[in-house]
Amino acid sequence: MQDDALARLDREDPLAACRARFRLPEGVIYLDGNSLGALPATTPAAVARAVEAEWGRDLIKSWNSAGWIDLWQRIAADLAAVVGAAPGTIAVGDSISVNLFKLLATATRLRPGRPVILADTRNFPTDLYVAQGLAALLGDRVRLRLVDAPEALAAALDDGTALVMASHVDYRSGQLLDLAGLTRAAQSAGALMLVDLAHSAGVVPVELERHGVDMAVGCGYKFLNGGPGAPAFIYLAERHQAAAFQPIAGWFGHAEPFAFAADYRPADGIRRFLAGTPPVLSMVALREGVALAAEAGIEPVREKAMRLTEVFLELFEARLEGQGFTLVSPRDPARRGAQLSFSHAHGYAVMQALIAAGVIGDFRAPDIVRFGFAPLYLGFADMALAVARIERVMREERWREPRYQIRGKVT
Amino acid sequence: MQDDALARLDREDPLAACRARFRLPEGVIYLDGNSLGALPATTPAAVARAVEAEWGRDLIKSWNSAGWIDLWQRIAADLAAVVGAAPGTIAVGDSISVNLFKLLATATRLRPGRPVILADTRNFPTDLYVAQGLAALLGDRVRLRLVDAPEALAAALDDGTALVMASHVDYRSGQLLDLAGLTRAAQSAGALMLVDLAHSAGVVPVELERHGVDMAVGCGYKFLNGGPGAPAFIYLAERHQAAAFQPIAGWFGHAEPFAFAADYRPADGIRRFLAGTPPVLSMVALREGVALAAEAGIEPVREKAMRLTEVFLELFEARLEGQGFTLVSPRDPARRGAQLSFSHAHGYAVMQALIAAGVIGDFRAPDIVRFGFAPLYLGFADMALAVARIERVMREERWREPRYQIRGKVT
Repeated sequence: MQDDALARLDREDPLAACRARFRLPEGVIYLDGNSLGALPATTPAAVARAVEAEWGRDLIKSWNSAGWIDLWQRIAADLAAVVGAAPGTIAVGDSISVNLFKLLATATRLRPGRPVILADTRNFPTDLYVAQGLAALLGDRVRLRLVDAPEALAAALDDGTALVMASHVDYRSGQLLDLAGLTRAAQSAGALMLVDLAHSAGVVPVELERHGVDMAVGCGYKFLNGGPGAPAFIYLAERHQAAAFQPIAGWFGHAEPFAFAADYRPADGIRRFLAGTPPVLSMVALREGVALAAEAGIEPVREKAMRLTEVFLELFEARLEGQGFTLVSPRDPARRGAQLSFSHAHGYAVMQALIAAGVIGDFRAPDIVRFGFAPLYLGFADMALAVARIERVMREERWREPRYQIRGKVT
Repeated sequence: MQDDALARLDREDPLAACRARFRLPEGVIYLDGNSLGALPATTPAAVARAVEAEWGRDLIKSWNSAGWIDLWQRIAADLAAVVGAAPGTIAVGDSISVNLFKLLATATRLRPGRPVILADTRNFPTDLYVAQGLAALLGDRVRLRLVDAPEALAAALDDGTALVMASHVDYRSGQLLDLAGLTRAAQSAGALMLVDLAHSAGVVPVELERHGVDMAVGCGYKFLNGGPGAPAFIYLAERHQAAAFQPIAGWFGHAEPFAFAADYRPADGIRRFLAGTPPVLSMVALREGVALAAEAGIEPVREKAMRLTEVFLELFEARLEGQGFTLVSPRDPARRGAQLSFSHAHGYAVMQALIAAGVIGDFRAPDIVRFGFAPLYLGFADMALAVARIERVMREERWREPRYQIRGKVT
């Protein structure tokens, strides 16, 4: 693909103007928005206002006057548009781990007598840890059953299965789950479907409502650009809410949070899935990122993400043949998220050398170099520039330099 | 007490210089630092740096280069000094509710065969809710038993008691718990002691290590000035850590968080009490507040807090006799936290009128007006000014104005 073809794609890109809505460092092509999204241009002022005017000047009054108390609802309304959820089905706060814990406990109550949480070993590890922790807490009442891959989940369903849990986009390969099909299969077997949207929210249409998904969690700091460690979100379909037992009972999910009653009485609806006081400064940053995602609209984002990965892959394979990379992601863009992963025998060192050359992706054990494609702030010309830099690093074998071999902490 | 006596107290105050370390609004006397602490002067720049340079410019690298990954440990080291904890016994993250949930579950494992969590109805309601939620999750294995007051806890201990849970400072009355005595009593009966430090951390010496307390939780946004909804902290004595089961198993508490192993293996030590990714921007603000508290030192803070409440009470009682206030807090400053509470038949309207007059305290149902005294940013002259304003509001019966009677959200 020639540069003029890429320039035309950029000119015709309906999302091209979004790039100016972010602050990006000079000289870097950032292909790690699936780990930590970039900084929206409005966020520094929004956070500074929250710190200096809302907290510093208005102090305690800001819970009402600045709307801190309802921040989660404002974010949830934008998120609902992004992930195709009905109003009143999303709460915002806590981490994915904590939110998963709540939902897994809820699931065991909604499906009594069914002890099995069914998952696959390709799921994000922390999701499996949370299920293991709940099982260790509850003993015989909960058991985590693992299969090798998401494709094996449907066949493993039986009348002991309370819940199927899977990642919408595989964090290593980028493979997209057949969410509609697996939800149908789970529900046909009498089980619930829980999907982890960490690597899809904001970049792949999820359509929770249309597919009838029962439960979901998702994270704010990847494609939603909510900032480092941004609070997560939690989704529970409306039909389950009235009966939903939430085990972490805190004042923020109480029916009357300011009554200081001695007994817990869960709030109606999704609000009972909140627990303690939310971290307001991080919530304010999340609000900015999610608002941008809602404004852009998920359909054009998905279309551009597919095209970006196609263009990158075409250039990559043309320029990097024989350099030891093997595509791990599905070749069909409809079957992957906004991500391309390659295995490479020296993957760790290769990624360190790429980062030093201004192409930031990340490494996932044991041997995967991973690139994420955030359509809101990446263009088509960036794809050629990134591949050219990768080509130079590989041809010059820069990754052999000892400094790139030293394993530090990988994030 | 005369103005010149107050001026002398301010001149001789070893903490007088701390006031300049905060940004406070003009014209307001802020007596609500026990609900939301004031803004440290270094925090706006620290948060702006985290947003613009660390996140915006350095992006994913900041997990290592800016030390995001270890932020909790830096905060914990300062906190240990503030609450008298041994190194390696405090973790920072999540909310009090979530942290309490973890510890209560841990306690049931450390004391098998003892189903009772013993608490009193004066404890902060959310603490009781969390215990109720865990009991509802675990069925017969856990039961919350309530007595009327913390003084009745020791007598209610028996060999079914796994844990005694109490607030160090009563959020309504400000009464200080006999932490050493209750810890001894609990442990003599074979139970564990868990204390909630929300209203004492940063203003009352806690001496967790010296008193041999087993478990604690505390919040960052009150006297630690960590910002709205700042992450909470969790304490577990070193002797319990090796055997400690933490039910919310997440990657951040894993022994090898970056190995992406399929099985959860808890980190050694207190780190296993972390769960998901921490909200970095809120953590950065918390770091500034806690660093200030550690630098000031808890002993001079406690001494000044006692003196501030004595001075305020003396002036208040001299000027406001016959205005319908009844002291709810202990009269002996050694038996209360940095707080004075009064019941008043029109408490809600009175507090609204005081806030409008520039004396910010808060109201707690059913009839309590509550004033908190943060020694780092309040002086003795402020006490006279506050009481003079309160006197004017009461003599002019401003609280009778209809606008002050309307109940809004109370925080």
